[in-house]
Amino acid sequence: MDRAVFDKRMSEYILAIENRLNTFFSHGVSGTEKLKDAVLYSLLAGGKRIRPVLVLEFSRALGFNWENAIDTACAVELIHTYSLIHDDLPCMDNDDMRRGKPSCHKAFGEDVAVLAGDALLTHAFGMISDSAPHKISYESACRVISLFSRYSGIDGMIGGQILDISADGKDVDADELKKIELLKTSALIILSCKAGCIIANADEEKLKAAEVYGENLGLAFQVIDDVLDVEGDEKLLGKATGSDIKRDKSTYVDLLGIDEAKSYSRQLTNKAIESLYPIKDNEFLASLAEFLVSRNF
Amino acid sequence: MDRAVFDKRMSEYILAIENRLNTFFSHGVSGTEKLKDAVLYSLLAGGKRIRPVLVLEFSRALGFNWENAIDTACAVELIHTYSLIHDDLPCMDNDDMRRGKPSCHKAFGEDVAVLAGDALLTHAFGMISDSAPHKISYESACRVISLFSRYSGIDGMIGGQILDISADGKDVDADELKKIELLKTSALIILSCKAGCIIANADEEKLKAAEVYGENLGLAFQVIDDVLDVEGDEKLLGKATGSDIKRDKSTYVDLLGIDEAKSYSRQLTNKAIESLYPIKDNEFLASLAEFLVSRNF
Repeated sequence: MDRAVFDKRMSEYILAIENRLNTFFSHGVSGTEKLKDAVLYSLLAGGKRIRPVLVLEFSRALGFNWENAIDTACAVELIHTYSLIHDDLPCMDNDDMRRGKPSCHKAFGEDVAVLAGDALLTHAFGMISDSAPHKISYESACRVISLFSRYSGIDGMIGGQILDISADGKDVDADELKKIELLKTSALIILSCKAGCIIANADEEKLKAAEVYGENLGLAFQVIDDVLDVEGDEKLLGKATGSDIKRDKSTYVDLLGIDEAKSYSRQLTNKAIESLYPIKDNEFLASLAEFLVSRNF
Repeated sequence: MDRAVFDKRMSEYILAIENRLNTFFSHGVSGTEKLKDAVLYSLLAGGKRIRPVLVLEFSRALGFNWENAIDTACAVELIHTYSLIHDDLPCMDNDDMRRGKPSCHKAFGEDVAVLAGDALLTHAFGMISDSAPHKISYESACRVISLFSRYSGIDGMIGGQILDISADGKDVDADELKKIELLKTSALIILSCKAGCIIANADEEKLKAAEVYGENLGLAFQVIDDVLDVEGDEKLLGKATGSDIKRDKSTYVDLLGIDEAKSYSRQLTNKAIESLYPIKDNEFLASLAEFLVSRNF
C-alpha cells in the first residue's frame, strides 16, 4: 500500500481513538478525582494504539462502518492499559517507568494503581455493552464480550502473565517462551483482529484468517520488542533498554541470537501477511505488519 | 413467610450457586494451576451468597425461570470475591484473614492475588455474555453487563473503595460514611436486585423498587457489620472483631453508639421491606431482610 495512503488512514484511526479515550470518564462521583487522574494518566500516556487500530481496520476491511466499532476498539486499549498498570506493580514486574514517565503506582501510589487497573478492566466491558444496539447489535456485543473475557482471562493474557512470573529467573526454551508470549502478548492482538471481524459479521474462514494473522503479528511484535531491548534507542522507546537482562528474563535474543531473532520476526511477519488471503481488502493490514516489523520504537 | 419455606428456598438457591461455582474453571492452560487454585480458594471459601440469592429471587419473583439466571447470579459473586481479594492486599486494607482462613495474598502471594482478582473480574463478564442467547436474551445480557460495569466501577464499588481509603484515619460524619457505604457495599447489592429484574423484563416501577430495597438492605447490612465488629462472636464471623477500631476506621457504631446503630439498621430494614409493594410475590425478599438484620455472623 502506498505509504501516504497508509499514513492518512492510520492518522484518521488514531485521531478517532484519542478523541474517544479523551471523553472517557468525563463525569463522576466527587472524591474519586485522584483515581480518575490515575486512570487517564495511564490511558493517555501515548502508546502505539495498535490493538484498537486492528479492531477498526478489520471491521472496515469486512464492510462495516468502522466509526461504530470505536467503543470496542477503545475497550481493548483499556484492557491493555490495565494490564500494564498491574504488571508494573512492585509485587509483579516492579517497573518504575512506563512510556517515558513514572509508572502509575510510582505517580499515584500502589493502592490507587490497583484500583485504576480494576476500573479500566471493569469499564472496558461496559463500553462494549453500552454501544449496543445503536452502534453494534446486541448479538455482536455479547459475542465480542465473550471473546474479550476469554482472550484476556486465565486462558489468555492473565494466564500468560502467571506463566511469565513462574518462569522468572528460570531457563526457558523456545517452545516455552512461545507459549508464554502467545498468551501474554498475542492474545490481545488476536482478540482485536477477531473482534473487528465479529462486529462485521465475518464468516468462519475470515475469522480464522484474522486469528492466524494476529497470532503471528503478536509473536513478531514481541520478538522485535526483545531486539529493541538490546539495540533500541532509549529516547525513542520511552524506557530503559537492557531491562530484560537486568531482570534475568528469557528473551528471543537470548535463545536465538540477535540476527536469528530478526530473521524470525521477518518469517512471522511474512506468515501474518500470507494468512490474509481470504480477506480481499487487505493492503492496510499487510502494510501494518511491515510497519511493525521495521519499527524502532 | 414461614421459616421452613424460607429455609427450603434459600437452600435450593445456595445449592445451585455452589454447584455452578464449583464447575467454574474446570479446564485450562497448563501452568496456570496455582492461579486457578487461588481463584477457587477465595471463591469457595464460604460466604453468605446474599448477592447471587438476590439475583435469583428477583428474577423468580417477577416470573422468570430462576435457573436460567444462575450465571448472572454467580457473576456477582465473582465480582464480590475479586473485590475482597484486592481489598485485602497489603497496599489496601492489609488484612491477613478472611472468612476464618488466611487471605488470598497470605496463602498464595501478592502477585497471584492481584491476578486472581483480575481473573475473577474478567470472567464475570464472560459468564453473563456466554449465557446468551440460551438462558437469557442478548438484550438482557447487554443491559445486565452495562449495569455490572456501572455499579462495580468508578461510580460504584471501586469509587467507594477509593473514598474509603481516602477517609482512613480521618474524622468522617454520618453523611460521608453513608456516601462511602452506598458505593462500597450497597452498589453490588443494588446491582444484584436490578440484574434479576432486568433478566425478568421488569418495568420501571419494579426496577425502582428493587433499587430502593437494595440501597436500604445494603446500608442495613453494613450497619450490622459494624455492630458485629464490636459485639460479634469471632468464631461465627470467621474474622477478628475490633478490626475497625484497630484500623482507625469510622463506623456507624462510632458515630451513633451501639444502641442507636441497631435501631438505625431496623429502620433501614423496614424501609427496604416497605419499598417492595410494587412486587406482588415479595414474601421471601421481606424475610431475607429480616434474616439479615437479625444475623449474628
